[in-house]
Amino acid sequence: MALPQTNTVVRIHPGKLADIRVEQLPTPTIEHPDDAIVKVLKAGLCGSDLHAYRGLEPFTEPYICGHELIGEVVALGSAFGQEVEGRPALYGKLKVGDKVVSPFTCSCEECHFCRIGFPSRCVHSLLFGSPYLPGAQAQYARIPKAGGTLFLLPPSLPADMPEESFMLCGDILPTGYFAALQALGHPNVAPIIRGESYPGVMGAIVPRVQEEGTRVIKEDQKLGVAIVGLGPVGICGLVALLDILSQANVQTYKVYAVDPVPARRAKALAILKKMKPEEAAHVEVLDIEEAKEKVTKETVKGCDAVLEIVGNDSALVLAYDLLRPFGVISSVGVHTSPQFPLNGDTLYTKNVSASFGRCPVRAMFPLAVDLLVRRRDVLAGVGGEEALVERVIPMSEAVEGYEKFDSRVWGKVVFDPWA
Amino acid sequence: MALPQTNTVVRIHPGKLADIRVEQLPTPTIEHPDDAIVKVLKAGLCGSDLHAYRGLEPFTEPYICGHELIGEVVALGSAFGQEVEGRPALYGKLKVGDKVVSPFTCSCEECHFCRIGFPSRCVHSLLFGSPYLPGAQAQYARIPKAGGTLFLLPPSLPADMPEESFMLCGDILPTGYFAALQALGHPNVAPIIRGESYPGVMGAIVPRVQEEGTRVIKEDQKLGVAIVGLGPVGICGLVALLDILSQANVQTYKVYAVDPVPARRAKALAILKKMKPEEAAHVEVLDIEEAKEKVTKETVKGCDAVLEIVGNDSALVLAYDLLRPFGVISSVGVHTSPQFPLNGDTLYTKNVSASFGRCPVRAMFPLAVDLLVRRRDVLAGVGGEEALVERVIPMSEAVEGYEKFDSRVWGKVVFDPWA
Repeated sequence: MALPQTNTVVRIHPGKLADIRVEQLPTPTIEHPDDAIVKVLKAGLCGSDLHAYRGLEPFTEPYICGHELIGEVVALGSAFGQEVEGRPALYGKLKVGDKVVSPFTCSCEECHFCRIGFPSRCVHSLLFGSPYLPGAQAQYARIPKAGGTLFLLPPSLPADMPEESFMLCGDILPTGYFAALQALGHPNVAPIIRGESYPGVMGAIVPRVQEEGTRVIKEDQKLGVAIVGLGPVGICGLVALLDILSQANVQTYKVYAVDPVPARRAKALAILKKMKPEEAAHVEVLDIEEAKEKVTKETVKGCDAVLEIVGNDSALVLAYDLLRPFGVISSVGVHTSPQFPLNGDTLYTKNVSASFGRCPVRAMFPLAVDLLVRRRDVLAGVGGEEALVERVIPMSEAVEGYEKFDSRVWGKVVFDPWA
Repeated sequence: MALPQTNTVVRIHPGKLADIRVEQLPTPTIEHPDDAIVKVLKAGLCGSDLHAYRGLEPFTEPYICGHELIGEVVALGSAFGQEVEGRPALYGKLKVGDKVVSPFTCSCEECHFCRIGFPSRCVHSLLFGSPYLPGAQAQYARIPKAGGTLFLLPPSLPADMPEESFMLCGDILPTGYFAALQALGHPNVAPIIRGESYPGVMGAIVPRVQEEGTRVIKEDQKLGVAIVGLGPVGICGLVALLDILSQANVQTYKVYAVDPVPARRAKALAILKKMKPEEAAHVEVLDIEEAKEKVTKETVKGCDAVLEIVGNDSALVLAYDLLRPFGVISSVGVHTSPQFPLNGDTLYTKNVSASFGRCPVRAMFPLAVDLLVRRRDVLAGVGGEEALVERVIPMSEAVEGYEKFDSRVWGKVVFDPWA
């Protein structure tokens, strides 16, 4: 199938703020045997697209934006079509016409970091929609290391799921899920969840020594988790958190979902209404002052873990303020501030554990797709105030889409490159 | 038994740097039913005593220094002598004449943080040898919440262990051990140790979803750990690390033990010579440039974990530099720098996980005592270049002890208050 020669794309231009343009460029071609060309069915607009838009990430040349897509394979490099021992199975399996999603970075599945489960730091990693790799807000996109990068959607997906809902797997759903997992899986939270004291709770790595002393009692096992930031990633984190906790054997738990923006709190409440009342009952949606007050009143010196989703100083400081000693900050926000708002003394004094950085999306895909399908009544809706993907608009209206998303008039926006 | 009215102590005075004086003060008395008075048999001088000495921690009134002791109980408050349901067993068990060690902070064993295993953030926690609680460099010391704070030494200790060696349990041995445990027990290190990729390796907390994709191969399971700082705590961390790894089922591992000070490297080498050759063979003792070079050459983009023992900016930056993406910094040094040397972007870009703060010594005691006894040929020696406790001097010579320890002419110094 010959592809059209021109490709409609959304580009950001340097020189002034927020210079978004819908333009025609040559359609990408296979440049490397491992490449695939994907016809973009829908492309997402993500909070981190706004960093360059707001001037927080300097760049010198225009580039194609976006790093969330659901697409259909239209061309494959010569590496495809044969199974090679040790290479990702997709090189043998992927066919033109297959529906795929892509993480926000390409990753090879063949290096050390991919193998151990951290593909967002693959040695071949490049971020789609950056100066280094053209993005997904386009009719066609080139996917490097496509046998490692792409995720083939299972053929038997529920018919009631709009295809753009799978685009959530490209970034925000795995990122929110990862934020929750990183927090709940930390050894310093384990005593609360598992009812065994530190360091014994660390299990295998700790030599078995008979310990004396007081043990964890039932009232210690009240898990408190805060989420700072209720944008789309924060809401995904909230749903993932509740999903994990509903399956984990936790005595009691409470989630403090915090955002200063009323529209985001309203969206979080709308999403919670779609969950089972017994799950939603564990959550309070709060502004900053309410959260500080509630956490002070209801916890022993703070939350066991805080998910920091925003990526700015005030969010990080709030996460710190809401945290108990020996608590865990799981930060997935992209931080651009030149100076860290906490210092070594602050971190020492509260025995803070913190994890920063980019979600290993490709490794989280199976969990994210499973969550999306099981929770499709909550996550997969498209359109309207109570849906995670608030609106799908023609890509030709991208300038307005960026403006309204940036000013928080609109929630999550998806572009249709073919409308 | 009536105690003498005066108590020889080491105090630090404000107003000028390094103003250490050996003085006579009234002997402490029971102030609260939970108190014990301990006759200090030996008291340690620790690197963190130097923070105030060097003017890094401001204070306005003189106070008794020191937070490491082995002692003998000489008086007990009225709470002792009866077992009370729910209180620490020591309130029923401890007797005058018992030998005890104390952590560097008091802790109640009755609050939430003590119960879950983080007694260094006990709600009653006070640091011995600080403006808030008189220290251990004295003939007698008052121990608050003594039924929770003290650790009763097992009656059946090996005869070949000098009593001052148990003083190591008050701070440096548990702190080094904790630094190692915090690093090796982190989920981001688990794929290397256990040979299963993230997130599946997190186990119980992760829903069981069939995962596709490449798996961990044998060559991924080369664990690399760096230790930044080979003072006494760093050496304890090194021994603890090797002890854990010798028992864990790790494919291969390498430890980069780093310090810019030749005398400290020499001490580390002397300690390693006392270990089994097959254990010591996993370690290289290096200066900073050698470490950077070796780690670059021998690892995939850095160490899986770095133990940061020093507590200053250059140590933390070096820890960062030696770390792989998604690696773990375990920082137990006391940081006093007003500005953090890393920022959010740096931390994001490498997906850093880091834990800061004070070791939960009381919770680590059983492990530390077990390690000390099992590794007594390495750890328990006293006196000489190749011993962890390099010299025991009369407490009357404390001024010289501080000077020589501060200037790194001497390694770990212990005071005998009765010589």
